[in-house]
Amino acid sequence: MTIAAFRADLGDIPVEDHPRIVQQRSRDHYWYSPVLKAKLDHVTAEVVVSPRTQEEVKTVLAAAYRHKVAVTPRGAGTGNYGQALPLAGGAMLNLMNLDRVIDIKPDRVRAEAGIVLEKLDQQTRPAVGGELRFHPSTYRMASLGGFIAGGSGGVGSIRWGGLRNLGSILSVKIITCEESPREMELTGEDVLKVAHAYGTNGVIVEAEMPLAPACDWVDIMVGFDDFLAACRFSEAITAQDSLLLKEVAPCAAPIGQDYFNRHKPYIRDGQSVVLIMAAPVAVEPVLIHLAYHGGEVLYRSDKASEEELRRLPPIYELAWNHTTLRALKVDPSITYLQTRYPTLKHVEKIVSILGDELPMHIEMTRQDGAVTFAGLPLVRYTSEARLEEIIAIHEDNGCAVFNPHRYTLEEGGMKRTDAAQLAFKRQADPAGMLNPGKMIAWDDPGFDLNSGRAWLFQGLAATAGAA
Amino acid sequence: MTIAAFRADLGDIPVEDHPRIVQQRSRDHYWYSPVLKAKLDHVTAEVVVSPRTQEEVKTVLAAAYRHKVAVTPRGAGTGNYGQALPLAGGAMLNLMNLDRVIDIKPDRVRAEAGIVLEKLDQQTRPAVGGELRFHPSTYRMASLGGFIAGGSGGVGSIRWGGLRNLGSILSVKIITCEESPREMELTGEDVLKVAHAYGTNGVIVEAEMPLAPACDWVDIMVGFDDFLAACRFSEAITAQDSLLLKEVAPCAAPIGQDYFNRHKPYIRDGQSVVLIMAAPVAVEPVLIHLAYHGGEVLYRSDKASEEELRRLPPIYELAWNHTTLRALKVDPSITYLQTRYPTLKHVEKIVSILGDELPMHIEMTRQDGAVTFAGLPLVRYTSEARLEEIIAIHEDNGCAVFNPHRYTLEEGGMKRTDAAQLAFKRQADPAGMLNPGKMIAWDDPGFDLNSGRAWLFQGLAATAGAA
Repeated sequence: MTIAAFRADLGDIPVEDHPRIVQQRSRDHYWYSPVLKAKLDHVTAEVVVSPRTQEEVKTVLAAAYRHKVAVTPRGAGTGNYGQALPLAGGAMLNLMNLDRVIDIKPDRVRAEAGIVLEKLDQQTRPAVGGELRFHPSTYRMASLGGFIAGGSGGVGSIRWGGLRNLGSILSVKIITCEESPREMELTGEDVLKVAHAYGTNGVIVEAEMPLAPACDWVDIMVGFDDFLAACRFSEAITAQDSLLLKEVAPCAAPIGQDYFNRHKPYIRDGQSVVLIMAAPVAVEPVLIHLAYHGGEVLYRSDKASEEELRRLPPIYELAWNHTTLRALKVDPSITYLQTRYPTLKHVEKIVSILGDELPMHIEMTRQDGAVTFAGLPLVRYTSEARLEEIIAIHEDNGCAVFNPHRYTLEEGGMKRTDAAQLAFKRQADPAGMLNPGKMIAWDDPGFDLNSGRAWLFQGLAATAGAA
Repeated sequence: MTIAAFRADLGDIPVEDHPRIVQQRSRDHYWYSPVLKAKLDHVTAEVVVSPRTQEEVKTVLAAAYRHKVAVTPRGAGTGNYGQALPLAGGAMLNLMNLDRVIDIKPDRVRAEAGIVLEKLDQQTRPAVGGELRFHPSTYRMASLGGFIAGGSGGVGSIRWGGLRNLGSILSVKIITCEESPREMELTGEDVLKVAHAYGTNGVIVEAEMPLAPACDWVDIMVGFDDFLAACRFSEAITAQDSLLLKEVAPCAAPIGQDYFNRHKPYIRDGQSVVLIMAAPVAVEPVLIHLAYHGGEVLYRSDKASEEELRRLPPIYELAWNHTTLRALKVDPSITYLQTRYPTLKHVEKIVSILGDELPMHIEMTRQDGAVTFAGLPLVRYTSEARLEEIIAIHEDNGCAVFNPHRYTLEEGGMKRTDAAQLAFKRQADPAGMLNPGKMIAWDDPGFDLNSGRAWLFQGLAATAGAA
């Protein structure tokens, strides 16, 4: 039996084969999507392998290659697209034991892939006064390698852009899946080959990330009677380059009232809220802009009681996909979309068409130098057909959709697979053992690499050419 | 005699009255403009008063009010618009002796107005690892108060915007010119009343500024055969929010060859150059983008010899108005403009119309969240009439001009005077003794505060409304 032979080559590397535990460890947050839930609920690996060192990762990959066992690399499993679901069964490669911090410099940190992002910052802050430039809302769970392999940006992208931007990841070390697995250090542009590639073309075991100056961010929640006024305010403060901000997210009513369980006592009926993280030095100017836009302060952590600080989650755990998560916990029929609204007018148009069927949630970001409305609207899901209509309404109105209801790299629109990446997979995973089924370009040699849609990770050539 | 009576009230505060020295200290860099040079060359104060403490400033201002002696506050006199020229004679108020650093915190510094900007950073860097967010190219000469009263932004504005943005100046302390001069602390929006007001409505004696993380910036000079390619590259790297940059300035040939005396051996004939300051962590990505755009590295300080580092000025002393200064030193017929090009197409259009009559110099900045081509083109000056034509060509092609050939606040287009600022001058300088002749709205009660032109400092209401 293949798996038995594979296991026999692993020595004392921990292997878990209890079906319930393996299934649990075979999952990510794909169930945010009813479409993915229906398609992927049965998926499970046969074993979970948990190497403790990079040498053990090589042992696992050599055995997988030798015995043709599919291997799906996994961090904390906090992705939402089924990135970490082992479509072909085989082995789930749990990398959370590789959690060493290797080197901290004033402006960068090098660590192993399995370290939890918050733990990484807990080491760099006292050491050099630095922290990661941005992180997902799953900061307290997600791993560094998982973020690089399956994430795109998050809290802090309002200042620093996203993982797709050159310079956001300084270096990645991968291990190939071959007869004799090799280490490869990718720097510069080569990093983009494995960023957001779901571990399909190499197992990320280490990365070097730039640090931003650490800051005692102040959590602020403000309220507006009108959601568009909340958006105008959000755009205005984001556009002030003088304001050091880490997070600005307008959420339409009744998102705050219905889904922010701990914060709802601060929010009046009908109020839309904006979630903000600001440097202490930016708080006063933000409040002046707030007054100009007719909003009111609902909560600020720098004026909160000890009891409030203990009781309330950090504001970033209301934002990004935690908004979706909190809604789902209250109302299982909720799902979401990932969109991009070129201007406030586009937001207004979509809100006017879809109303409360699409409770609007925007993350203010900087994308290629422009203040951008990145949408993560909730969707009151009724059917896959209606979801497709909602997507079509966006596209018909000039708003890009990065469909989170697809589990392949290409169909989600987050990652443009180009010839360079495909060629790299041939080097790093010649037998196609890594996370099979996720890269269409690999499985379908006739796939059009240049299909005309919007991609978030579009590769450097396109970025450089577009500017 | 008025001045004699004024002097008699000054006690032992140092006063200089040697005409040659007084005339020399009555000047700023107004002579960058042949127009201002013709109009203002005869201007001089009668005395220079150099108080050593804020109490002495009060003594000077009380005496000025009592004896109706005009007072023109002055820092290092590095402004280019005649800001510090005493149109009504009287006393030049030299504030360079007020140079104490009062308080350094991790994210801000409070200091007296006369401290030189570089000296300020020399104290904050070792103390808290912070430095000013941006500074003029006259960093090694200019004072903090002079920068606030007469400057707008500079090296670092590519990341942090300008002084006009709320949050760029945290607090300003002024002394009023009245019978009993008062101290006033302006914070928040009130700061905008005295920022870039040329000291017409209060004498700035202290300010609190936010700090950015200090960085060992790498100076880089790159070359392109084509100026527009240099601009495309400059726009592309500026738009990468992931790249920590402090300066990006494309300068068309033959600016580098003809005017950058020490750097010219690095520049080939016909090459346009881009002046860059990048964080160490951003150098490699910048060079990758450079390769994409077909440019070549001409100089980088992180690979320079000790001898080069000693011999060459820092790259910021080729940029902003140092570009103009270096050109003027070689060719006294050169002057300049201050412009804003909405897009690269606008740059291209102006270059195609004006060619070598307007050797193009752009400073990449962020303005209200947008990557912006701020122009400081050189002008091969022939006549005032032709200069006006060149301005008209800009405006006819949709490019704003902030005319540096005007000495009043309003005519230059940098400062929109509004009712609040005018009202504030009535409080802070009821007799109109401070820098007379610079604020038209004061001298001409019929002046249209809302005339339709472009203003750089347009006040918060307009900024908030525009967003």
